[in-house]
Amino acid sequence: MLFFCLSRLPLSFAWFLQSHRANCKSTKMAELMENEVVRAFSTYAVIVVVKMLLMGPLTSYNRFARGSFSNEEDVARKSSEEKKQLLKTHPDVERVRRCHHNDLENIIPFVIVGLLYALTGPELSVALLHFRIFAGARIFHTIAYIGALPQPSRALSWVVGMLVTFSMAYRVLNTVLFL
Amino acid sequence: MLFFCLSRLPLSFAWFLQSHRANCKSTKMAELMENEVVRAFSTYAVIVVVKMLLMGPLTSYNRFARGSFSNEEDVARKSSEEKKQLLKTHPDVERVRRCHHNDLENIIPFVIVGLLYALTGPELSVALLHFRIFAGARIFHTIAYIGALPQPSRALSWVVGMLVTFSMAYRVLNTVLFL
Amino acid sequence: MLFFCLSRLPLSFAWFLQSHRANCKSTKMAELMENEVVRAFSTYAVIVVVKMLLMGPLTSYNRFARGSFSNEEDVARKSSEEKKQLLKTHPDVERVRRCHHNDLENIIPFVIVGLLYALTGPELSVALLHFRIFAGARIFHTIAYIGALPQPSRALSWVVGMLVTFSMAYRVLNTVLFL
Repeated sequence: MLFFCLSRLPLSFAWFLQSHRANCKSTKMAELMENEVVRAFSTYAVIVVVKMLLMGPLTSYNRFARGSFSNEEDVARKSSEEKKQLLKTHPDVERVRRCHHNDLENIIPFVIVGLLYALTGPELSVALLHFRIFAGARIFHTIAYIGALPQPSRALSWVVGMLVTFSMAYRVLNTVLFL
Repeated sequence: MLFFCLSRLPLSFAWFLQSHRANCKSTKMAELMENEVVRAFSTYAVIVVVKMLLMGPLTSYNRFARGSFSNEEDVARKSSEEKKQLLKTHPDVERVRRCHHNDLENIIPFVIVGLLYALTGPELSVALLHFRIFAGARIFHTIAYIGALPQPSRALSWVVGMLVTFSMAYRVLNTVLFL
Repeated sequence: MLFFCLSRLPLSFAWFLQSHRANCKSTKMAELMENEVVRAFSTYAVIVVVKMLLMGPLTSYNRFARGSFSNEEDVARKSSEEKKQLLKTHPDVERVRRCHHNDLENIIPFVIVGLLYALTGPELSVALLHFRIFAGARIFHTIAYIGALPQPSRALSWVVGMLVTFSMAYRVLNTVLFL
């Protein structure tokens, strides 16, 4: 039974790719996605959100590599002595988690403000400048955090990302203010 | 005075329901919401976000039931000895909080990527498959986390949810890439 | 070199303001942003998200003022004895972080549900009521949390914000349900 399922996997994957390709032609995209600024926003938003999501597996990897878990059931098959050791925090795991948390605090506001910003119809070149600087700053922030690079590398990339979001927020309020 | 306010509550509630019903007919919905994929996305997005929000009251309930608070002012009326005991963490409260945090890390990226995905005009059946699998996986994840079900139930539901988001991200980048 | 860059700063800033102003007139805004409810939503969403973002610098400020850091590299230039003291948690820093975390848990769901709500075409007055109550409740929540005001001030503002989100979620499901 399991073998049958597994033997179908390559087929399913082909179908999966197919279904995503075919759609591009066969169905009408929402008009919104024909706007170049919205397309640029979507591209960079997906890139930074996927980067953020990948911190999850990285945390998992570190939990196994360093032997540091936070739930009883994760170490259920171990002896009680091993359990005690495995249920401790480890600096490397905590570092990745802090980086992940910082992403939540900064990337999600960027995406929210950025979507509204894209809808205000900014010039493409100015919009691209905002999106590119933000994506670059956040990717560098992750490298600086995980690699524990000397400060102020991490602090600077954090500030740059935040300034980009503030700049877009200013434009949104300036354009659509309705209290 | 308080009695007066309370006696008005049922009336307010009726007005509240009324205001939401009446609007459906009287005002024009944005065209976007006439798209079936966007409607399906909105439904599942609201379901998983409300599920996530409900982790807040669940944490509060556990804080009172287990006697575990994190702010001085929350236990202001207790004697100083009781305070010490009440300001400790409790495993059950921490478990709910970790579950809530995992929701933040996974459900919000799903909503962001899912919105952009819905705007790329995927086939309804493929889109529904994505949304349903994700909603099911995350609801099961919460049950597995809060109930401390044996692994790998929780790990699997977490991976499934993430794969759905990656699949949608792939489709978005494949359709609108604009760097 | 540095001086040259700095001397250009005022010019860059003028260009920045200019680029944001000029766009308003020269490019066509997306139709969506002509809708008054969407404009009101955008205004309040940006206000609460910027409020949330500002908790980051507030945490930083408290880390320096109280001498409480969480990364080795943040205190790299200190002597090893000072390091030990600086790498401890401080109640004031933890308080701001809990407030920030609570914002993430409540403001982001509001923005997601609120965007979908705005797209369902509610009456402007009802929508404004929702947005204004939420923004007021969350700003008061921050004051109550940072200022450690006696309970139930913080609990009440938290509940009010949540009820607003639930009310909008109810309207969205009621209008676009598509399972």
